[in-house]
Amino acid sequence: MTHFGDALAARVARTSPVCVGLDVPVDRLPEGLPRTAEGVEAFARGIVDAVADVAAAVKPQLAFFELLGWEGMKVFWETCSYAKEKGLLVIADGKRGDIGNTSEAYADAYLYPDSPVDAMTVHLYHGSDTMTPFLDRCARNGKGVFVLIKTSNPSSGDLQDLPIGDEVVHEHLAQLAEAWGAQYIGPETSFSFVGAVVGAPLPEEMRYLRTIMPHIPFLIPGYGAQGGTAEDVAAGFLPDGTGAIVNASRSILYASSGKDWQQSARAAAQRMADDLRAAATRP
Amino acid sequence: MTHFGDALAARVARTSPVCVGLDVPVDRLPEGLPRTAEGVEAFARGIVDAVADVAAAVKPQLAFFELLGWEGMKVFWETCSYAKEKGLLVIADGKRGDIGNTSEAYADAYLYPDSPVDAMTVHLYHGSDTMTPFLDRCARNGKGVFVLIKTSNPSSGDLQDLPIGDEVVHEHLAQLAEAWGAQYIGPETSFSFVGAVVGAPLPEEMRYLRTIMPHIPFLIPGYGAQGGTAEDVAAGFLPDGTGAIVNASRSILYASSGKDWQQSARAAAQRMADDLRAAATRP
Repeated sequence: MTHFGDALAARVARTSPVCVGLDVPVDRLPEGLPRTAEGVEAFARGIVDAVADVAAAVKPQLAFFELLGWEGMKVFWETCSYAKEKGLLVIADGKRGDIGNTSEAYADAYLYPDSPVDAMTVHLYHGSDTMTPFLDRCARNGKGVFVLIKTSNPSSGDLQDLPIGDEVVHEHLAQLAEAWGAQYIGPETSFSFVGAVVGAPLPEEMRYLRTIMPHIPFLIPGYGAQGGTAEDVAAGFLPDGTGAIVNASRSILYASSGKDWQQSARAAAQRMADDLRAAATRP
Repeated sequence: MTHFGDALAARVARTSPVCVGLDVPVDRLPEGLPRTAEGVEAFARGIVDAVADVAAAVKPQLAFFELLGWEGMKVFWETCSYAKEKGLLVIADGKRGDIGNTSEAYADAYLYPDSPVDAMTVHLYHGSDTMTPFLDRCARNGKGVFVLIKTSNPSSGDLQDLPIGDEVVHEHLAQLAEAWGAQYIGPETSFSFVGAVVGAPLPEEMRYLRTIMPHIPFLIPGYGAQGGTAEDVAAGFLPDGTGAIVNASRSILYASSGKDWQQSARAAAQRMADDLRAAATRP
């Protein structure tokens, strides 16, 4: 059984730190695809085919599949299986979290041994009770979990930046994440299967979060359409250029709305990969 | 179109403040039901039939439906439709929350105009960006939203009780909830369609939260199997006995594991209703 922290590092080394977010609203499909669950599935498969040897991972956003009812959830699972077959790591982005027995159900729903999902995103509003079942399933089933630390949206500071003593809320949670994660280091790397979602705030804040979470792989959202650049995210990488993947959704999915959407998505992912490699390893 | 705050108050007046949590693990079905998605559906329908004229609402816990894959989501939607037909309010408990366009997708997934779901639970880790689409859909579609303020699990304080200045995190969010909610008061009551999940902490804390959220209907978890009593939750009601519903799951669902599970669930819900009515209106 592979440790998720090791698997992620190996996959990034073979491909790039690019994570492609599959946030697929049915009303933004390219021309020629039906605006139905089948159209979403065809689009998601087409994006997977386009980026399979460029990106480390895809990140299906559950909200857009749930939006299509149970038929959408069927497409979600089929998309995950297809991406997995193509060698991509699959991160289910649902930001789940609840009390203990409910978090167990979430962990078992997505991170069972043969699941096509490799890791999922989790919010920590309920505290450590949410994490316990996830840590257990990740350890037993070779899976990973990305906890929300700092998000990339305009109002992320409403709760995440509230001052508590000498630090702010998200820094406090970052220390908890490191404490949990440091117990589960991959045998081949220094990375945990506990990762963190770290939006691109100011570079000095990103640098600080990198310092206090040395064993935690970062999933950095906000690149591309949300305004983040390679310079903004560079501080999320370790000095050797490892330790982070960077997500882009719209800038890759909608690189073209015409018939060349697959080639354009692939080209956008390749440009992003080059851009990140250069920024991550800059002295 | 009915305002959710008004609809909730009217339904509680006709029935009771009881909310029955449909947290249905497939391995805890009563004897005679198959341990499959069909078995879960039969059990959920049976519970709905048993409590339809006793309870104000049911609260399907999405995790346990997601645990059964897309087939489970089909059962989730069918269960919601069935409960709605029987006159119950339906609160989808998924604790969703994300950046703006993703929260839009969640709001549209569950709170569309003819949805059998009347309200859903939301976490606020991303701040007000999460709320904006929910406020919009609730106002347009006659729906409601319960934001997580204070949860009932042992580690709820890890984040929720962190001190910020003179208050703690969940008190700060309670003030935000009241500020959002006070903009959307029902024409027939003083209640908003913005509700709050308020676990039963110390009675004085419950009393304080009731004071700072005068327009917010409370959804109080933790009664029954989680250890809460009617006395613990009494402070969550307004002086006239309105303003809160109280959730129990296991103590009703598993009142009996034998063939009499429906009668036992109904009797447990009736006892809880009597218990709450007495505690809520105590001088």
